[in-house]
Amino acid sequence: MRTLYHLWLSPPCRQVRLILGEKGLACELKTEDVWRRRPEFIKLNPAGEVPVLVTDDVVVAGAAVIAEFLDETVPEPALIAGSAAERAEIRRLAHWFDRKFNAEVTENLVGEKVMKRFLGTGYPDSRAIRAGKENIHYHLDYVGWLTERRTWLAGDRLSVADMAAAAHLSALDYLGDVPWAEHEPAKHWYARIKSRPSFRPILADRLPGEPPPKHYDDLDF
Amino acid sequence: MRTLYHLWLSPPCRQVRLILGEKGLACELKTEDVWRRRPEFIKLNPAGEVPVLVTDDVVVAGAAVIAEFLDETVPEPALIAGSAAERAEIRRLAHWFDRKFNAEVTENLVGEKVMKRFLGTGYPDSRAIRAGKENIHYHLDYVGWLTERRTWLAGDRLSVADMAAAAHLSALDYLGDVPWAEHEPAKHWYARIKSRPSFRPILADRLPGEPPPKHYDDLDF
Repeated sequence: MRTLYHLWLSPPCRQVRLILGEKGLACELKTEDVWRRRPEFIKLNPAGEVPVLVTDDVVVAGAAVIAEFLDETVPEPALIAGSAAERAEIRRLAHWFDRKFNAEVTENLVGEKVMKRFLGTGYPDSRAIRAGKENIHYHLDYVGWLTERRTWLAGDRLSVADMAAAAHLSALDYLGDVPWAEHEPAKHWYARIKSRPSFRPILADRLPGEPPPKHYDDLDF
Repeated sequence: MRTLYHLWLSPPCRQVRLILGEKGLACELKTEDVWRRRPEFIKLNPAGEVPVLVTDDVVVAGAAVIAEFLDETVPEPALIAGSAAERAEIRRLAHWFDRKFNAEVTENLVGEKVMKRFLGTGYPDSRAIRAGKENIHYHLDYVGWLTERRTWLAGDRLSVADMAAAAHLSALDYLGDVPWAEHEPAKHWYARIKSRPSFRPILADRLPGEPPPKHYDDLDF
C-alpha cells in the first residue's frame, strides 16, 4: 500500500497525485500539517516538507524525486519518456514550474493568501499579490506558445511537465486567480488535461470555509 | 564539443563542472552575464539562467536536468547509481542543496555579498548575512551526521548529491564563510572531495578584485 503525506492546495502534492492517477496507482492520502513539525514526520523527511510518498519499504520525498521514482518503478505509462534530449526537455519544463513559476506566481498568490494563514506568518502582502497577478500572464503566454507548437508542453507525449504546470494552475484556479479569458491557447491545453480521469480527485478538493469559484470543477469553463 | 554557459561563483554551475570532471568530459566554459539578458542566450534558455550545457545537437538547462542528462548519455562513472530507492536518496539530497541550502544559506551569503553587486539590486542586507551564517551550522551538522554513517552523502558511492553539496560549500568557502573548525566530520568529507582531480579547476577560480582566503585551495585546510 502507498501513503502520500500532503497538503490540499500544495502544487507539488497535486503533481504527485496526478502522476499516481495517470499510472493508475491507488494511494492513501494523509494531510500533514507541516507547520507542527511532528517528530515522526521529520524522521520521514528531515526537510519537513510535503509531498512524501511512503511505499512498503521506501520513503521518497519531494515532487521531482517522487516523479523520477514512480517513472522508474512503474514504467507504464511513461511520463518522463523518450531520448535523453526529450527527457531533458520534460525535466526543464517541470523545473520551470517547480521553481520559476512557483517563485514568481504561486508563492505570491497561494503563498500569501492561504499558506501564510496556516503558517501564522502574518497578513497577505498586497504588493506580492499584485506581482503574482502580473507575472502569471507571461507564464500563460509561454504555455500557449508551447502548446501551439506541440501536442503537450514538452512534446508529443503527456509528461510530468504537464502535471507540474497543471498542478500549479489548478491551485491558482481554486483561488480564481487564473485569467483564462485572456489566454485562449493555454486554456485549451488546460481544458484537455482537466478532463482526464487523473484530474477528478483534484477537482473534488474543498478547503474548509474557502469554496472555489464555480468554474473550478467545470470541464467547459 | 561541449560548451557550458556559466558564472564563476554559481553553485549550480560548479556542480555541473564537477560532474563533467568526474566523467572526464572536456568542456569549453563561457561566462554568461545573465543580468544582460542577451537575446541569443535567452533563445538557449528562456529562463535566462545558468548553467546551460550545449553539445553538438542538444541544449540542456539547469543543474539537476544536466546531471540527469549526463548520467544518461555518459553512464560511466554513474553519479545517480543504484536501485530506484538509492537513486531517490541521491536526488533527495541533491535537491536539499539545490533548494533548501540555497535558500537558507547560499542566497543569504553569496547572493547578498556577490550577486547583488553584479545584478545591481542594492547593498548587502546584514540581517540576511546573519541568517545565512546561523543557518549554515544546521546544514554542516547534517552533512557530518550523514557522512559518519555513510561513505559519501547519499550512500556507498560518490554521487551528484556530493557534487551539489560541495558546489555550494566551495562557493561559500571562497568567501571565507564556512566555519569548518566547528564541524570536523563535515570538514573530513569536504577534504576528501576537495582532493579529487575534478575539483582542481574549481580551486583555481579567481574573482577579479576578490581573492579567496588562503585555505581555499589548500588541500590540508
